[in-house]
Amino acid sequence: MAKSAEEENQQKAFGWAATDNSGILSPFNFSRRENGDDDVTLKILYCGVCHSDLHTLRNDWGFSFYPVVPGHEISGVVTEVGKNVTKFNIGDRVGVGVLVGSCKTCECCEQDLENYCPRIIFTYNSYNPDGTKNYGITVYSPMKYYGMTEAGKHLGVSGLGGLGHVAVKIGKAFGLKVTAISSSPQKESEAINRLGADSFLVSNDPEKMKSAIGTMDYIIDTVSAVHPLLPLLSLLKVNGKLVTVGLPNKPLELPVFPLVMGRKLIGGSDVGGMKETQEMLDFCAKHNITADIELIRIEEINTAMERLAKSDVRYRFVIDVANSLSQ
Amino acid sequence: MAKSAEEENQQKAFGWAATDNSGILSPFNFSRRENGDDDVTLKILYCGVCHSDLHTLRNDWGFSFYPVVPGHEISGVVTEVGKNVTKFNIGDRVGVGVLVGSCKTCECCEQDLENYCPRIIFTYNSYNPDGTKNYGITVYSPMKYYGMTEAGKHLGVSGLGGLGHVAVKIGKAFGLKVTAISSSPQKESEAINRLGADSFLVSNDPEKMKSAIGTMDYIIDTVSAVHPLLPLLSLLKVNGKLVTVGLPNKPLELPVFPLVMGRKLIGGSDVGGMKETQEMLDFCAKHNITADIELIRIEEINTAMERLAKSDVRYRFVIDVANSLSQ
Repeated sequence: MAKSAEEENQQKAFGWAATDNSGILSPFNFSRRENGDDDVTLKILYCGVCHSDLHTLRNDWGFSFYPVVPGHEISGVVTEVGKNVTKFNIGDRVGVGVLVGSCKTCECCEQDLENYCPRIIFTYNSYNPDGTKNYGITVYSPMKYYGMTEAGKHLGVSGLGGLGHVAVKIGKAFGLKVTAISSSPQKESEAINRLGADSFLVSNDPEKMKSAIGTMDYIIDTVSAVHPLLPLLSLLKVNGKLVTVGLPNKPLELPVFPLVMGRKLIGGSDVGGMKETQEMLDFCAKHNITADIELIRIEEINTAMERLAKSDVRYRFVIDVANSLSQ
Repeated sequence: MAKSAEEENQQKAFGWAATDNSGILSPFNFSRRENGDDDVTLKILYCGVCHSDLHTLRNDWGFSFYPVVPGHEISGVVTEVGKNVTKFNIGDRVGVGVLVGSCKTCECCEQDLENYCPRIIFTYNSYNPDGTKNYGITVYSPMKYYGMTEAGKHLGVSGLGGLGHVAVKIGKAFGLKVTAISSSPQKESEAINRLGADSFLVSNDPEKMKSAIGTMDYIIDTVSAVHPLLPLLSLLKVNGKLVTVGLPNKPLELPVFPLVMGRKLIGGSDVGGMKETQEMLDFCAKHNITADIELIRIEEINTAMERLAKSDVRYRFVIDVANSLSQ
C-alpha cells in the first residue's frame, strides 16, 4: 500500500518518552512531519520540567496517550525558517510554550487569546491543560486580567513552587506588598531574602493565619493538590480576588458565605496568548525577573520527577538538552 | 434600681415574632429606643417576605437570636423627621432594606459600600446576610460590579424566585439576551411571556443543557439550596462570569478545570450600598421594572412561609401591613 503524504514527508526525531503510567522516561526514537513553509526549526538547548508533565506522565488527569514525549518549556536557537516566516531569523533565540497552533479565526484567537481556542494544538501529544511556562505567563496573565496590579495593594502568593516563586517576583515588580503563603516554615528566609517577599505566612499555623484575616487584596493560588479554600478566602478583604492557576484533580470545597458577604471572587486562568506572552517577557526583561532553576542532565530526569512529586526543587528543573540529549 | 437612659427613652412597638426555631410567627409586644435628631420615623405600609427571613426564623444559618421580629423589605410614608435630617420630609414615600446603620468612616463606607462595613447595623436583631430587597439591588449591584451589562451579551438567570424574576427584567433592560434556567418546566411560558426572557432552559434536562454548553457570557445564580456548579460553569463561554447571590448553608463543590481552562470566574455579592440602591431605583423607574408580588395579610404569614419553603410563590409575598397589622 502506498504511503500517505504525511508518512512520506517525515523526519526522524529523538527524545525521552514514558510508555505507561509508571511515568518512567527512557530514550525513544520516533518520527514527525517535515517542517514546511510556515514553520520555524530550532535546535533545542533547554527544557523546563513542569508539574503538569508529571501529571501527564502518570495519567493523573485521565487523558494521557502513550507513548508521551513531554516538554513544553522549550528554549533554543533557530536553525531554519520556512519561506513564509517573517518574524524569525536563523540564529534567533526563541522559546516554545504549551501551544504550537490554533485556528486563528475564532473569537478567542481574534482577541489574542489563542490559549483558549477550542481548536488549540498543544506542544505534545496529550491534552495538557495547566502547562505553565518558565517565565511566568501563567501568573502574569491573570494578574493583568483580574486587575491585580495596583501598586501598594497586598498580594498573597499561595505555594512557593515554579509558579509561586515567579509570582512573588512579578508582584514586587508591580509595586505590590507581597506575602508568601506556604506550609513549609523553612522557606521563610529564602522567600524574604532571595525572592523579595515582604512577609511570610505559614498556612498551617492557625494563630498566624488568624492574625492575617482580612488583610489581603489579591491571592494567587498555585497549589496543585486538593486544599481548602476557606482559609485563603478569609485572608482577603472585601472585594478581594483569589485566582487559582493550579489544577487539582478533584473539585475543591467552595464556601459561599465569604464570597457573598465580602463580594469576593474566585477566578481561573490558563497560561496566556502569544501577544501577552511577549509583553510579559518584555516586562520581565525590564525588571530583571528570571526563574530560579536547577539545571540537570537528561539522565537525571526520573530522579528529578521523584523530587518534583515531593516538591523538592528550587524552583524549576531545567534539562540541559544540548549537552545531554543525544542519540 | 434606676432605669438606664436607654430604658427611660423607649417607645412601645408591636410586630409578629418567632420565639424559637419552629419559626412560627405570632403577635408580639416589645419596646425600642425613641427616635432622635438623626432619625426618620415612618408608618410602615408594606413589607416583603424574603427567603432569608425564613432561614433566620428557623435558625438555618445558626446565628439567630430569639425572639426575632423579621422584615427587611419595608416601605412606608415618613411621619416625623429629626432636626438633623435633610434628605427626607414628612409625607415622602420611603423604603428600608437590610441595613439601617454603618460606621461611615471605614474603607467600605467611604466607597459607598456600607453593605460591606464590618460595623454594619442590620434592620433586625440578627445577623442576616442575604437580605435581598424587593426591587432587585441584590442582582443589579453584581451586574454592574462584575461588568455584566454589555448589550447583546447572553445572560443566564438560574432560579426563578424573588431575585431571579427581577434579574430577568433587569437583564432585558440592559439589552441582554436572557435565558431563564429553572428546574420547573411549567415556568417556561410565564418566564417568556410575562417576564420577557428570550429563552428557557430546563436545568435537569441533560439534552437541553448539553446543547447550551458554551453559549452564555454571564450567569446570575440565585439558587439558595445546595446545588452543583459544574453544569452552570459549562454553560459559560471563555471569560464567562458566574455570580452567586443565593446563600446555601453548606459549601458547594468547585470544579477547578473549567475555571482555569476557560478563564471563568465565580463571584459573590451581597445587596448594595445606599448610593447604588438609589441608582437602581432610578433605573427601574425609567425601565418600568417592578417586582411581581402576592399581597397577603399578616394573619396569613405562617402559611406564606410554608409556601415559600416549597418555592410556591409568584414571586414575592408582600404583607399589607397598614391594613392588617394592628394591636
